[in-house]
Amino acid sequence: MRYSSIPSAQLVVQHCKAKKIKNIVISPGSRNAPLTIDFSEDPYFKCFSIVDERSAAFFALGIAQQLHEPVAVVCTSGSALLNYYPAVAEAFYSGIPLVVISADRPVYKIDVGDGQTIRQDNVFDRHIGYSANLKQDVSHAVHRVEKYMPQWLSGKNIETVQQEIQAYNNNELNTVLNVALQVKLPVHINVPFEEPLYDTITEPTVKAESISEIGKEGAQTVHLKAYADIWNSSKQKMVLVGVNPPNAVEQAFLDVLATDPSVIVLTETTSNLHHPNFFKSIDSIVAPIEKSNETEELFEKLQPQILLTFGGLVVSKKIKAFLREYKPQHHWHVDEIKAFNTFFSLTHHFKINIDYFLADFVNFIEPQPSNYFDYWNNRRVQYEAKREAYIKDIPFSDMLAFDFILKSIPENYQVQLANSSTVRYAQLFDLDSSLEIFCNRGTSGIDGSTSTAVGAAYYKETPTLLITGDISFFYDSNGLWNNYIRPDFRIIIINNDGGGIFRILPGQEETENFATFFETTHDKNVEHLSSQFGFEHMLVNDVTSLEVRLNEFYKLSDKPKILEVHTPRFLNNKILLGYFDFISSE
Amino acid sequence: MRYSSIPSAQLVVQHCKAKKIKNIVISPGSRNAPLTIDFSEDPYFKCFSIVDERSAAFFALGIAQQLHEPVAVVCTSGSALLNYYPAVAEAFYSGIPLVVISADRPVYKIDVGDGQTIRQDNVFDRHIGYSANLKQDVSHAVHRVEKYMPQWLSGKNIETVQQEIQAYNNNELNTVLNVALQVKLPVHINVPFEEPLYDTITEPTVKAESISEIGKEGAQTVHLKAYADIWNSSKQKMVLVGVNPPNAVEQAFLDVLATDPSVIVLTETTSNLHHPNFFKSIDSIVAPIEKSNETEELFEKLQPQILLTFGGLVVSKKIKAFLREYKPQHHWHVDEIKAFNTFFSLTHHFKINIDYFLADFVNFIEPQPSNYFDYWNNRRVQYEAKREAYIKDIPFSDMLAFDFILKSIPENYQVQLANSSTVRYAQLFDLDSSLEIFCNRGTSGIDGSTSTAVGAAYYKETPTLLITGDISFFYDSNGLWNNYIRPDFRIIIINNDGGGIFRILPGQEETENFATFFETTHDKNVEHLSSQFGFEHMLVNDVTSLEVRLNEFYKLSDKPKILEVHTPRFLNNKILLGYFDFISSE
Repeated sequence: MRYSSIPSAQLVVQHCKAKKIKNIVISPGSRNAPLTIDFSEDPYFKCFSIVDERSAAFFALGIAQQLHEPVAVVCTSGSALLNYYPAVAEAFYSGIPLVVISADRPVYKIDVGDGQTIRQDNVFDRHIGYSANLKQDVSHAVHRVEKYMPQWLSGKNIETVQQEIQAYNNNELNTVLNVALQVKLPVHINVPFEEPLYDTITEPTVKAESISEIGKEGAQTVHLKAYADIWNSSKQKMVLVGVNPPNAVEQAFLDVLATDPSVIVLTETTSNLHHPNFFKSIDSIVAPIEKSNETEELFEKLQPQILLTFGGLVVSKKIKAFLREYKPQHHWHVDEIKAFNTFFSLTHHFKINIDYFLADFVNFIEPQPSNYFDYWNNRRVQYEAKREAYIKDIPFSDMLAFDFILKSIPENYQVQLANSSTVRYAQLFDLDSSLEIFCNRGTSGIDGSTSTAVGAAYYKETPTLLITGDISFFYDSNGLWNNYIRPDFRIIIINNDGGGIFRILPGQEETENFATFFETTHDKNVEHLSSQFGFEHMLVNDVTSLEVRLNEFYKLSDKPKILEVHTPRFLNNKILLGYFDFISSE
Repeated sequence: MRYSSIPSAQLVVQHCKAKKIKNIVISPGSRNAPLTIDFSEDPYFKCFSIVDERSAAFFALGIAQQLHEPVAVVCTSGSALLNYYPAVAEAFYSGIPLVVISADRPVYKIDVGDGQTIRQDNVFDRHIGYSANLKQDVSHAVHRVEKYMPQWLSGKNIETVQQEIQAYNNNELNTVLNVALQVKLPVHINVPFEEPLYDTITEPTVKAESISEIGKEGAQTVHLKAYADIWNSSKQKMVLVGVNPPNAVEQAFLDVLATDPSVIVLTETTSNLHHPNFFKSIDSIVAPIEKSNETEELFEKLQPQILLTFGGLVVSKKIKAFLREYKPQHHWHVDEIKAFNTFFSLTHHFKINIDYFLADFVNFIEPQPSNYFDYWNNRRVQYEAKREAYIKDIPFSDMLAFDFILKSIPENYQVQLANSSTVRYAQLFDLDSSLEIFCNRGTSGIDGSTSTAVGAAYYKETPTLLITGDISFFYDSNGLWNNYIRPDFRIIIINNDGGGIFRILPGQEETENFATFFETTHDKNVEHLSSQFGFEHMLVNDVTSLEVRLNEFYKLSDKPKILEVHTPRFLNNKILLGYFDFISSE
């Protein structure tokens, strides 16, 4: 095996191995050659090559999202690094340990007019768990250090200085990777390399001293009994779950909550939780209240005394607006690491895994007589019946397409939803409980849905379906520019000729300005892009052909497939707004 | 005309108008609706709509590069903003006044788990001329301010607080735009907006108080006479010019330098300067010295006593390495704003426009007897003859293709060169002096060459040709996803099946790891992408068809055109390295 002759490159790679960071997504470059050599030569690592760093980072995020472990991205110096930022921010708000490793120029070459050179250290400052700015080795290319950075040596022996640098780097690498592992945040390691970059040796010259940090003070000791007493004394408790990975919570605990008459459990498709008593379409509950004559009365009826939340970000704007207005007396959030004060009423953060929390909590709580569940469940049954009726009658449109598509997905599929129409439409329907649902809701960007889906599909036992809109798909089309797309990967694109989501905004008329600057209409389909990236492409324009195509779509094939569903631009928003009117009508 | 009802939106737009910022590149979104409405309703502005913010910012940069004036980009909240960063860094190092305007959520919604919400203020901290973090209006959506941000009012009258906020924003807007105008750096304006976002009114409610900053203390008084005396006393003076816009320097001044026997003028294609005595292929001078038996002797002969530089970044790595090793006694850089100490020997920064400097300087300087010019000119004549001979004999390859392509370009074209092979190859040839040459050398990234070229072409009197490699082209293919591509826009893609530039690196064997992680080989052509974006596409694989196609290529057409030149991957690096060997041989 070959190793880079540069000590800090060896150190970075050894630390990743020691911390079991196996998956490394490399973007090509010259400055990062020492890292690329060491990662790609060691069969311990699975290395991926993806050119566009924006896409590479989302791809890595997709893998990390599935494996629940840190995944590294490696790039050269200069603006390459900045292209990681959208995925870094998504990882920051979604709690995904993306490990960014950037090769840098030697310090003395920064801001003197060298090519591909920017200020890389701490560049993700605002959205990063930790930035490790490694020091440049002095034992490598000694003559340049003596020439350009004599102050680093300041009369000391080179070996001594190198030892100090290695100790510093060693320490920083332990710290930064422990943050990724324990705090589940993205981290950044910046490594300056002096030329020559390509020299290799057959034995490593340094040895990482990896320290796994011991959990701080054990878990928080929570006096759940006291909280359970509060819980038991209340007749109106709401459980609201945001983005949550599949199988995170034992069903038995959920069943306890689901069958308590004083509890309603609101979930989203991205919650990956299931029970017949759960309220899966939050907006279908809230919208009719907003439209009713007795809004205030109904909202007061819905207002919980206790709000229990877990998981990540919540899609529904309506529930956020409601809870901010009708605040619970208690808002408890359960999460090992962090709690957003989303409703401006957070009263307690249980720093513990939700499964552990519930395992304990269910021992103390008891079902309370209340008509809270029954009342809202009746309304739920009503809107579900109305939804059925409404959908039966609507013409071909985004909404009808979603109804057919979501029902068509084979069991156990992973479903990746793009932002933002897609994930919002999906909230309106019941999805099969065997499906695993994901969406980048950390920043809710349209910039990396495709890349994330391709990465998330890579190691999955079951196939993956990405559902996306035309704008999101075009935005991240480079997500398909790699060699890691499985032949069973499927994409359904709802092409409504632009950003259809903007059509539901208030006060927008059919003006040219609206079409240009909000909706950004176009007349493109994705046939050419499908060919570019080796996908089989099929296009449908009506419900009959949609049904026919869906029958074939999931069958095994040599090539991955794209099903493009072209929906009528001017109709979609009317159908969607009409839905909320219809379920709100008496 | 309609105006947003939000005062700060009106203020931003009015300030842009007052400072004559006419071109506005908008990416679609909802949070930025107040800005989009005001910019797009006022016919003073030319608004562009580009979805992918990465591409939008480079497009804007291309316009600013040509017009030498600030161009604004406008986006919604969240990760959208982060996609501007590659172009912001390029603008920062190229001295281009890109004005980034981001809509933001109200402060109280940041970091509480709201969608499309990140920490936007100061996010470009490391690479920005100024960040103006505007304050949210309290007169808009008063009930929310009272509810969520009562401390803003702290017993004061809303009108009073609003006046204070407006005064603050007014002041910040003056400052930030004056930085863009005077310091020629990118700037960032972050504007938090509370809902409702779409309400409009027929008369603006605020009025910008725009102040143009008076130039500081007039121009620097430079005692050029003293410097001219030093200049006149030296027999070896080198003028080296980096990226420099066309027509920036009067030819008569250049002629003075060009005909002084004690001066050699080294230019690059991106210098846009021309004289028969100039040395246009720097590497063709330096490489033979590196390969010679008398390297040290020759470098000492080439070492200037005085180095005069102007313009932006220099492409040639060889000249940078040489001058860092063989430092001049004096390095003078002429630029109104900044001077990089690229060669670690900067002794004086003349803070003045190069044309003004030379206009004055030539009055004091006199040609000095010296064989400096003659000696190196002889060597230049030699390598030029050898280049002719070499090119006559080589097979079809990147190098031969560049020879044909560069000779084919019609007079007065704008030529945009992508990084990095393309701009490096172009340095080896003489280009027609009527051509205007540009390349993003601030960060030398491959991330925005196409978008920049499309933007740069937009207002140009003459047509534009982009020459790019396959990897750069694929990377920024979204650069073609807009409606602003002129039918006379031309792209030539040198497709060598991957990052051919990496093949010339030392110590790289034909291993799978090399092909995957450095060269990133592929077997794609750009036919599908050409169709996707409405280009006519032609593909050539040999010199004969290249010649035939070039004959037709520049003719007027309804559609823009792409000429894809497929070159032999395994041969290109050998031909290029062989060139330097050949011109170095006795």
